[in-house]
Amino acid sequence: MRLSNQLMRNTLLRTSKTRYTASSLSSSLWKRSYSIKPISASTELPALDPSKLEITKTTTPKDLTPNSQLQFGKTFTDHMLTMEWTATDGWLTPRIVPYQNLSLDPATCVFHYAFECFEGMKAYKDKDGKIRLFRPDKNMERLNKSSARIALPTFNGDSLTKLIAEFTKLESRFIPNEKGYSLYLRPTMIGTQKTIGVGPPGSALLFVIASPVGPYYPTGFKAVSLEATDYAVRAWPGGVGDKKLGANYAPCIVPQQEAASRGFQQNLWLFGEEEYVTEVGTMNLFMAIKNKETGLKELLTAPLDGTILEGVTRDTVLALARERLVPEGWVVSERKVRMSEVAEAATEGRLLEVFGSGTAAIVSPVRKISYKGQLVDCGLQENEEAGEIALRMKNWIEGIQYGEEKHPWSYVVE
Amino acid sequence: MRLSNQLMRNTLLRTSKTRYTASSLSSSLWKRSYSIKPISASTELPALDPSKLEITKTTTPKDLTPNSQLQFGKTFTDHMLTMEWTATDGWLTPRIVPYQNLSLDPATCVFHYAFECFEGMKAYKDKDGKIRLFRPDKNMERLNKSSARIALPTFNGDSLTKLIAEFTKLESRFIPNEKGYSLYLRPTMIGTQKTIGVGPPGSALLFVIASPVGPYYPTGFKAVSLEATDYAVRAWPGGVGDKKLGANYAPCIVPQQEAASRGFQQNLWLFGEEEYVTEVGTMNLFMAIKNKETGLKELLTAPLDGTILEGVTRDTVLALARERLVPEGWVVSERKVRMSEVAEAATEGRLLEVFGSGTAAIVSPVRKISYKGQLVDCGLQENEEAGEIALRMKNWIEGIQYGEEKHPWSYVVE
Repeated sequence: MRLSNQLMRNTLLRTSKTRYTASSLSSSLWKRSYSIKPISASTELPALDPSKLEITKTTTPKDLTPNSQLQFGKTFTDHMLTMEWTATDGWLTPRIVPYQNLSLDPATCVFHYAFECFEGMKAYKDKDGKIRLFRPDKNMERLNKSSARIALPTFNGDSLTKLIAEFTKLESRFIPNEKGYSLYLRPTMIGTQKTIGVGPPGSALLFVIASPVGPYYPTGFKAVSLEATDYAVRAWPGGVGDKKLGANYAPCIVPQQEAASRGFQQNLWLFGEEEYVTEVGTMNLFMAIKNKETGLKELLTAPLDGTILEGVTRDTVLALARERLVPEGWVVSERKVRMSEVAEAATEGRLLEVFGSGTAAIVSPVRKISYKGQLVDCGLQENEEAGEIALRMKNWIEGIQYGEEKHPWSYVVE
Repeated sequence: MRLSNQLMRNTLLRTSKTRYTASSLSSSLWKRSYSIKPISASTELPALDPSKLEITKTTTPKDLTPNSQLQFGKTFTDHMLTMEWTATDGWLTPRIVPYQNLSLDPATCVFHYAFECFEGMKAYKDKDGKIRLFRPDKNMERLNKSSARIALPTFNGDSLTKLIAEFTKLESRFIPNEKGYSLYLRPTMIGTQKTIGVGPPGSALLFVIASPVGPYYPTGFKAVSLEATDYAVRAWPGGVGDKKLGANYAPCIVPQQEAASRGFQQNLWLFGEEEYVTEVGTMNLFMAIKNKETGLKELLTAPLDGTILEGVTRDTVLALARERLVPEGWVVSERKVRMSEVAEAATEGRLLEVFGSGTAAIVSPVRKISYKGQLVDCGLQENEEAGEIALRMKNWIEGIQYGEEKHPWSYVVE
């Protein structure tokens, strides 16, 4: 579609009563235009209110899937949490309802213009049977950033965390009490306006669904091999690659298939002529090297320059490294690293280990990276599936997630 | 979500019976990986078959909206065309059914990862009452390119054109017979797999909805003013900005709102340090200048380098310019143009006119462009709303669309 000012203006004007103030200007030059300023919906309209939660329980509870048969994101719990928003009425009553299909007009903007963003987080059961979330404030903060970037509404993060906590309590029986198991939570926001003019959605739906999941590596770590991708670009400065938008995912599948067709489990996204290492598949990437100049051990990851996702696990790994590895003599760096530097470190025996970081796996060790026809060896012995730092990080983080280590990052659902 | 090889592998393996061949390799290095090659679904699975079309007519036909009250994309016809695809069974029976909501599991991949692409095209009624499409082959070609880029299925373009023709015949009463009016058609493809692992969708839905629309400028051309955007970037080489993906649209709204807040109807996307002129809002951009070196009149637009949409109207304008303006001494160029060159041409009185091109407006004349604090005058007199080339293009193109000029671009629905 090739639509221009008229549609945009119509759309803006349509919502002007609620989200915009429109005033014609006296200048003859701009006689046909309007001064339109976005107004934060949250300052004027009803906010998300956890105290108003209404629960409708299912009358047909599902059978639990045995732990050994759990597959990521294929089975869901009995209910879903839903919150509607409109530009005129703000956030409506939050509801927990039986898990059910969404019924949407085919003109709904989520189908046409990718008005959609999401989060991935988990609920864990500790040894006392208490439900715990892990740094939910970080997910709330990121979801608000994602949604604002595509003109979807923002919300109070603490309110959504409270609602999610209620939801996990209701679905408690779906959270396995074995360590390594958890309930994956998927908060998702979509634009629901049912007109195909391109403009800010006048209505939205925030929903949370939940899928019980097993450990990422049921039989212990398995190192993966990557293909460095230089022919396709995931993200760029001034773009939206640092936001958790649906828009960032569909375009990544074909390059992943390409890597898979050559025997690599994931692709590693390089950026620019310098071939900076950015992300691996859908995870952030960490590299442990012996620094060429200083001789010191350095844990490296790409900086938050707008081209990589602001991973919660990335932030967690960095914080733990600064607290627990720096005293051992490690240097922790967020800086741009060229793929050629990584290859050089490998050749010179200075590449100690490489791992991805993300909510699903926590850490995912890397064995080899295919780059310009060579296989860069990432420092693992042949019979070794994880390096020392990856192992320690996984233990530290799981310890906090399952409440074995007392830590403010663990949010106990009361 | 931060998911890696295991999920990807599961997804690929799950579909391996149908879309992929998987074979383990003997190399010990790759003992955990697979050689996975995409196989074109169309070579093995049932293709889209227009002869199988099944029609279920509505029992509650809608009242027609008077021509004067038509608004783009707000009212739709009585029916919709739907075609389902699965990785195991290929394209299923095409159906025309009453316009109705889509009922989708909240885990459906279109909501999470933007598996969605679309087209915009129109059906016109000529003075003999015959229905005409305009270059539908171009829309079919582009939709196939868009869908392949995000691992959605491809289809035979002629088959979909035939089905769309049948659909327009059934909805004939919604196509106004006044010139300038038309039936806007929105073919849309979405991924419908209901699991949240990131991978190629195992099922998809292609649907077409239709909205009767009036002329873009009901009372004659109205020139628009633009704000040059340098702080946000729409597309990047190696990205997907040349495909008609939903992913390209949601991220553009906030920059459009920013431009609107300062009184400009649209934003003009600049690219790179050179500030190359790329697109305007959701249209391609044409500039007519007097060339500084040659003194010749030149009609310029950005080249298809992967960062601009491959507009059907853009292609049409270029073809007509080459056929009809070149003999008059015009030079027609697809080349990168810096915004500073455009500003310089304006200052030196060499900027003759500027217009956007797209399906909705055909051409949309530009009066001013805000750039680095100055207002670049695009060559229109104060009481003039369109330049000569924009006017002639609109007349030529409409003449073909409404069958006044016989032309192979006009597809008559029999």
